[in-house]
Amino acid sequence: MDKHVLGIDVGGTTVKCGLFDTSGELLKKWEIPTDISDGGKNILPDIAASARTEIADTSLLAGNTSILAGNTSILAGNTSLLAGVGIGVPGPVLRESYVPRCVNLGWGSVDVAGVLSDLMDGVPVKAANDANLAALGEMWKGGGRGFRSMMLITLGTGVGGGIVLDGKILPGLHGTGGEIGHITVNPAETLQCTCGRYGCLEQYASATGLVRTAKRMLAGQHEPTVLSSCSEISAKRIVDAARDKDPVAEKALDEMCDYLAMALGTMASTLDPEAFVIGGGVSRAGQILIDGIKKHFPKYHFVGEGLPEFYLAQLGNDAGIYGAAKLIFG
Amino acid sequence: MDKHVLGIDVGGTTVKCGLFDTSGELLKKWEIPTDISDGGKNILPDIAASARTEIADTSLLAGNTSILAGNTSILAGNTSLLAGVGIGVPGPVLRESYVPRCVNLGWGSVDVAGVLSDLMDGVPVKAANDANLAALGEMWKGGGRGFRSMMLITLGTGVGGGIVLDGKILPGLHGTGGEIGHITVNPAETLQCTCGRYGCLEQYASATGLVRTAKRMLAGQHEPTVLSSCSEISAKRIVDAARDKDPVAEKALDEMCDYLAMALGTMASTLDPEAFVIGGGVSRAGQILIDGIKKHFPKYHFVGEGLPEFYLAQLGNDAGIYGAAKLIFG
Repeated sequence: MDKHVLGIDVGGTTVKCGLFDTSGELLKKWEIPTDISDGGKNILPDIAASARTEIADTSLLAGNTSILAGNTSILAGNTSLLAGVGIGVPGPVLRESYVPRCVNLGWGSVDVAGVLSDLMDGVPVKAANDANLAALGEMWKGGGRGFRSMMLITLGTGVGGGIVLDGKILPGLHGTGGEIGHITVNPAETLQCTCGRYGCLEQYASATGLVRTAKRMLAGQHEPTVLSSCSEISAKRIVDAARDKDPVAEKALDEMCDYLAMALGTMASTLDPEAFVIGGGVSRAGQILIDGIKKHFPKYHFVGEGLPEFYLAQLGNDAGIYGAAKLIFG
Repeated sequence: MDKHVLGIDVGGTTVKCGLFDTSGELLKKWEIPTDISDGGKNILPDIAASARTEIADTSLLAGNTSILAGNTSILAGNTSLLAGVGIGVPGPVLRESYVPRCVNLGWGSVDVAGVLSDLMDGVPVKAANDANLAALGEMWKGGGRGFRSMMLITLGTGVGGGIVLDGKILPGLHGTGGEIGHITVNPAETLQCTCGRYGCLEQYASATGLVRTAKRMLAGQHEPTVLSSCSEISAKRIVDAARDKDPVAEKALDEMCDYLAMALGTMASTLDPEAFVIGGGVSRAGQILIDGIKKHFPKYHFVGEGLPEFYLAQLGNDAGIYGAAKLIFG
């Protein structure tokens, strides 16, 4: 491939874009706001217009002027800049193109790849779910580098995930492969999850879940803890306190790691992947999180021939644009 | 493919063999004992000798005599009978050939495909885990017919499983993909599983588990039940009694279905497959088992775009030879 690739990650508030060169290096990245008005009808046109503007930026093309030679479109055609565009969407995507519905963007059914390709002079476009693309991105250039089969688990406000097997995304029939936020890890839970059910992984392993666990522990104990003097307890506050050996914070984080280990033990038995990569805001906790998961993992995994490896994600919010580009690089 | 295919399923006590014609029809099947003496060193030679004998059987070749014409080997070569041999092994198999260890057969590390091919005049051989091949077989000719992505769960003395995604087995890094018998479904369990851990699916969803559950329920209740008069309670007895509306048997089966639904809910969130196929001895319970799983499934699955389908396995003990043949048919 001697052309560039555009990787796009559509979120509910911003669209992240990255232009990659032939070798997979990120040359330039930028963001535009996500306009969800009018059923999100401006999102794809805005992306196309922004791509056109940014790519035409002469400073980017310095030393690359030949890519425009003899070319009526800077986007498509034999002598064009772009080999293709990968785009991630925060919802299910079927057949690398079709979004049946995307609540976060206000979309009903949209042929994302078809529409965006039309808007970009016919350049090839492939679409996928954003969490799956983040997994692909982390495998390509992040915490999962060097592996072919891995799972990314993102711990943020919610819990998400994406699976890559033998270098390819596992999309699933309905485009929801790897979405383990709402698998049941505690059938005895009596508190309802936001999804309406009980005992979902997200209730324990998200930032929100960690705070809830810490508050529950605070209510029922009398050990001195810095958390009792916090005006507002956040996941970051708990992790920081756990690092300082605060007993309640340590216990709350340990419970989160225990549930995560249970979920990942199940994933390991099911997928038998090479590695798990932990991302999302909560993963900024760092090694203390990996150590906690590894401590509990053997309780939940039938270790036959070997253990999977555990890594922290490395690409942060850029994982999606890397994965989107990798869809095109193949 | 204008040649025949041999499908072999090596079990701990017998080796099942099936000869399939070009169209995938099973022409003939036979069994030989599994000789696990001397570290199982006779198993592959016995298979090769048996294949030679059975294939040379003239009644089989009636009307097919041309396949022998000009052929020094009836197994391999351009004018040979066999396009290939698929073989299932009760343990992990890597790269469609290599078995690092197979306790049930007494094997240490064996290049199954290489050795068997050498013993069979160089005919191509592919190997895979037996549970994974059973899943492939059920997809090809059994309960999963018409699907490309499905999971087989086998409920027997233990609980096993195999995953087929987009028509291909998910083997996993260590050859243990789909082995969900020991995923944790009840973290509060205090009784130890045979694997040494607590709350594994197998403790509730195997034949053994169902009997244990019924006995536990019998100990603590006073409702009239036919089970209390059984000299020995078996899974079959419980299922039969549940069909006759015996309250304790119904409750025991319901609990098994509840745990199964939880495990399959997790599998559905992870893999998002088209269908689940339930096999193994316990699946002879039939529709009552499928209905029970379906009843509890919504508690454990975040139904976004749709539900997977649930079917009973259809090939019984032949699933393995069908799957082994399908490895070659591709």
